[in-house]
Amino acid sequence: MTGGAGFIGSSLVDRLLAEGHTVLAYDNFSTGQRSFLVSAAANPAFTLIEGDLLDTKRLNASLRDVDAVYHLAANADVRFGPDHPAKDLEQNTIATFNVLEAMRVNGVKRLAFSSTGSVYGEAQVFPTPEDAPFPLQTSLYGASKLACEGLIAAYGAAFGFEGCIFRFVSILGERYTHGHVFDFYRSLKNDPTTLRVLGDGSQRKSYLYIGDCLSAMLVGMEQTRGAIQVFNLGTDHYCRVVDSIGWITEQLGVTPRLEFTGGDRGWVGDNPFIFLDCTKIRRLGWAPKLTIRHGVERTLNFLRQNPQLLEAGA
Amino acid sequence: MTGGAGFIGSSLVDRLLAEGHTVLAYDNFSTGQRSFLVSAAANPAFTLIEGDLLDTKRLNASLRDVDAVYHLAANADVRFGPDHPAKDLEQNTIATFNVLEAMRVNGVKRLAFSSTGSVYGEAQVFPTPEDAPFPLQTSLYGASKLACEGLIAAYGAAFGFEGCIFRFVSILGERYTHGHVFDFYRSLKNDPTTLRVLGDGSQRKSYLYIGDCLSAMLVGMEQTRGAIQVFNLGTDHYCRVVDSIGWITEQLGVTPRLEFTGGDRGWVGDNPFIFLDCTKIRRLGWAPKLTIRHGVERTLNFLRQNPQLLEAGA
Repeated sequence: MTGGAGFIGSSLVDRLLAEGHTVLAYDNFSTGQRSFLVSAAANPAFTLIEGDLLDTKRLNASLRDVDAVYHLAANADVRFGPDHPAKDLEQNTIATFNVLEAMRVNGVKRLAFSSTGSVYGEAQVFPTPEDAPFPLQTSLYGASKLACEGLIAAYGAAFGFEGCIFRFVSILGERYTHGHVFDFYRSLKNDPTTLRVLGDGSQRKSYLYIGDCLSAMLVGMEQTRGAIQVFNLGTDHYCRVVDSIGWITEQLGVTPRLEFTGGDRGWVGDNPFIFLDCTKIRRLGWAPKLTIRHGVERTLNFLRQNPQLLEAGA
Repeated sequence: MTGGAGFIGSSLVDRLLAEGHTVLAYDNFSTGQRSFLVSAAANPAFTLIEGDLLDTKRLNASLRDVDAVYHLAANADVRFGPDHPAKDLEQNTIATFNVLEAMRVNGVKRLAFSSTGSVYGEAQVFPTPEDAPFPLQTSLYGASKLACEGLIAAYGAAFGFEGCIFRFVSILGERYTHGHVFDFYRSLKNDPTTLRVLGDGSQRKSYLYIGDCLSAMLVGMEQTRGAIQVFNLGTDHYCRVVDSIGWITEQLGVTPRLEFTGGDRGWVGDNPFIFLDCTKIRRLGWAPKLTIRHGVERTLNFLRQNPQLLEAGA
């Protein structure tokens, strides 16, 4: 599990350990949290390696005796890409190449990869299916994940790699450490009277609860063999930013004045509408159990119970 | 002009010089040929920098006072990708990132990029349009070019870069130094009685003559402003490998026995059918002047007149 100390990675570590698997987590703790691995560390089937994916020597040595790689480590920050363009290249594209090469030299061929709905750029078809029209990239983050997808598929063709590429919507839930719920809660905790909202609040986004995300990944990996498969992961609904703000402020019991920065998107490369067609993964028997609203509420509960994360976060 | 000493790059150098432009060629001569720049070197409007795109210091210094970048340097070898997976990553993806960063720090925003029809993987729609269904990559080469395309589009969105991504079919003509005409001619020169053919010879491919390719690139760059545009470049026809062999052997006056290695493709990642829909670039007024057969014949003539290239080639 690369990124094994991260939000999704550590949650998947716990899930796989609970299912009786032996799990090796690899993380450089650039954004991962040691506290997320406390439970795992008590399990003898768990091993942690503190390492960077750009350290190919350590990485190659770590993949001995591994059956499958869940590659979740990434620079997951879509918004600040233009501030440091090399970061997505290094931590996503090159890091993924290093993972694939480490798998190849160790004879490991099964892989799950966390991609993103951002690879659709500004989609023209909603809900957006996996075989949507060939998109033009709109963010450095999406471009780097697209590059990773291409590498993985090419390794599939060249070296017989198999497994799944999962294109996530935004994931919410326990251990969530960045994103709009995080930003809004931190802001409202500091000042409950005013909330600054990027864009005009009409941006429509999809969110998936972490528990549903993990189930989908496991279903995908269990039920696909042979060539690399691509699956969208999301819910059958979307919400507007202002809807989510309504749920958050209601739960917190605050009534801030909303200050919109204006425009139909929050930042350069922001996508004003993300809504994925998840028919393909649903055909394997998976369905999300939580609504977007429930996911937002659980996320907020988690953040309220873990105030230390607010200081650690982005 | 990155890759300014290469087949397409040096041809475009000559064309741009003939049109009165000032041209700076940047090439590491890994596959470029000094002989291709003899004519250019006699022109005071031409400068050559011998440098590698991984040498960011030299690259950044070279892009001062540049209006537009034609980024043609690449590892253009689609067939041997699995023998050295890092090569496509370094020479295509990372090199392109370095070009984009050098442009950004120098305030250069116009770009033409040589991509490939290989980014369509094994297309499901023929002729394949630019907005074909989101493809799965089948070669490390295609994956690396897709990564470059994504980076370029993201730089367009983030930093206002403009220009064209051209998805080429195989290009033929004078200064051609690798590919099937090269391989077949070299083989028949050594032994005109037998010709080994990868696959079953039924693979259907498109080819475009270099002169037509250059015209299309210039038309695209002249007529598009604003966001990054993607254009397929090819002819409205395709041929089978055995058709091309027929033209080559007829021109050489030889009648080899054909030994097919078998299977519907020549190598891992070979695409048995490449045929691009070029309606979009044709709408700008461009049309190819030479047929595929004429392109093959001119290529063969050029190779016969330049036997020294057969030893230099791959």
